[in-house]
Amino acid sequence: MEQYDLLVIGGGPAGLSAAVNGRRRNKRVLLVGKEKVSNKLRQAHRVDNYLGFPGVSGAELAASYRGHAVAEGVELIEDEIRSFWPEEGGFQAMGKEQLYAAKTVIIASGMPQKASIPGEEKLVGKGVSYCATCDGMFFRGKRVFFLSELEEGEKDANFLADICAQVYYLPRYQGDYRGLDPRIKVVSGRVLRLHGEERLTKVETSAGEYEVEGAFIERASLPLDSLMPDLALENGFIKVDRQMRTNLPGVFAAGDCTGRPWQIAKAVGEGLVAALSAVDYLATLA
Amino acid sequence: MEQYDLLVIGGGPAGLSAAVNGRRRNKRVLLVGKEKVSNKLRQAHRVDNYLGFPGVSGAELAASYRGHAVAEGVELIEDEIRSFWPEEGGFQAMGKEQLYAAKTVIIASGMPQKASIPGEEKLVGKGVSYCATCDGMFFRGKRVFFLSELEEGEKDANFLADICAQVYYLPRYQGDYRGLDPRIKVVSGRVLRLHGEERLTKVETSAGEYEVEGAFIERASLPLDSLMPDLALENGFIKVDRQMRTNLPGVFAAGDCTGRPWQIAKAVGEGLVAALSAVDYLATLA
Repeated sequence: MEQYDLLVIGGGPAGLSAAVNGRRRNKRVLLVGKEKVSNKLRQAHRVDNYLGFPGVSGAELAASYRGHAVAEGVELIEDEIRSFWPEEGGFQAMGKEQLYAAKTVIIASGMPQKASIPGEEKLVGKGVSYCATCDGMFFRGKRVFFLSELEEGEKDANFLADICAQVYYLPRYQGDYRGLDPRIKVVSGRVLRLHGEERLTKVETSAGEYEVEGAFIERASLPLDSLMPDLALENGFIKVDRQMRTNLPGVFAAGDCTGRPWQIAKAVGEGLVAALSAVDYLATLA
Repeated sequence: MEQYDLLVIGGGPAGLSAAVNGRRRNKRVLLVGKEKVSNKLRQAHRVDNYLGFPGVSGAELAASYRGHAVAEGVELIEDEIRSFWPEEGGFQAMGKEQLYAAKTVIIASGMPQKASIPGEEKLVGKGVSYCATCDGMFFRGKRVFFLSELEEGEKDANFLADICAQVYYLPRYQGDYRGLDPRIKVVSGRVLRLHGEERLTKVETSAGEYEVEGAFIERASLPLDSLMPDLALENGFIKVDRQMRTNLPGVFAAGDCTGRPWQIAKAVGEGLVAALSAVDYLATLA
């Protein structure tokens, strides 16, 4: 397995800025992002405070940012890092189906997501899952519910359609859902509660109830404490110093995952600082 | 005297970002910058790591940044804030010839400058001055030396040409010096030492010696400890937390004056954070 100098987790403004600046210092940079382009950025109608470029659309900015990273030679992979851990000489990170290795890690995974639906936290691992490709087989021949905040969820839902008796799909994004397998039933409304004691029994939405044994939830980012258990948090965000260093040597963070304000310019600046700190750290390894 | 919500000291990327974001929150913003456009930025040949806009020239970026601030309704004044202090309901700041008032202050004064020439620190106030319009009259009819890192120094040198017997002008910037009064003698080289015990007697340069009674030094920014004596520094930079708050309530800082890395994206991000922190602070006053 190839070992990169920098593994950047997340392809929003912070991650792309970190990756570009790592490349500017001639480091080998792998950026693993769950989304091809940050949905949050792409869907911004108009961004008026990225200094020097008022009135740009989120989609334009997203394209410029990604184009900049590609031009600098950043390697971009669409995958979700589910966890990472120290390994001799650096870190290993687990994607959905693949391992990655790097000497340093920059976490730029966006706004931390928490179990926010009543009943969700209690039922994680008891019918509630955040990874269809990981846990789908447990629900073979059963009825499942799929709550997706991302278009990228459609692929996973299609995977479930092949193995489950019925998939109810509740999209929480703008789209035409045409990529979905026709066996999937698209439903609307808002999820109000997940029911069940020992195991999940029912998903209650504002538009009806669904008796299911599994519920998959696809959000823009995983809860941070599942990414790396030793990582110190503060008020739910990754704790960093002014050099964007976390409590773990060789691990840096930038952008929304480090706290407010949730703004592009902050993310871009922090990505740069994190990258330069990672470069400094790499020099101490040599 | 009109009281602004935000007084931003410095017109580089950090200051302009702070000003734009203060305006986006509908605050009344005054930006006082010593230079019309940051010379440091303007002279950058090519900036490759302002995310999304690779290969832009410093001059283009400087023009876009300033244009953005003007479009947002930032009031821009060319002056140098020499010091500021708390006043009931906010702060007052002293420019070269004018007072300003604001409820909050954001310091974005760039790289802190120190007395760096041998003999300089000892002779401040004993012939060495950082303000020609303030101290020029003390040197009426005398010979003076003027070391200028900024084109803006030419105006002050011309002022001295009217009152002093002779002005030697050593420019440390690219320019044609055509704005200089013909009575001024332009000299070249590097200043090596300022001589004198009780008072300045001589300026020694790599290209000769000048017997003078006064030496004016024009740098991009003043030493930070003369700006506001109570401001806490750390390793020569303004000490800030992650919200860009200084040790003084209502006073924030952003950009190069807060430390490394000295990069545009860091400055722009910090300017934004400082502005939003100032906005939060203003809400507590209401």
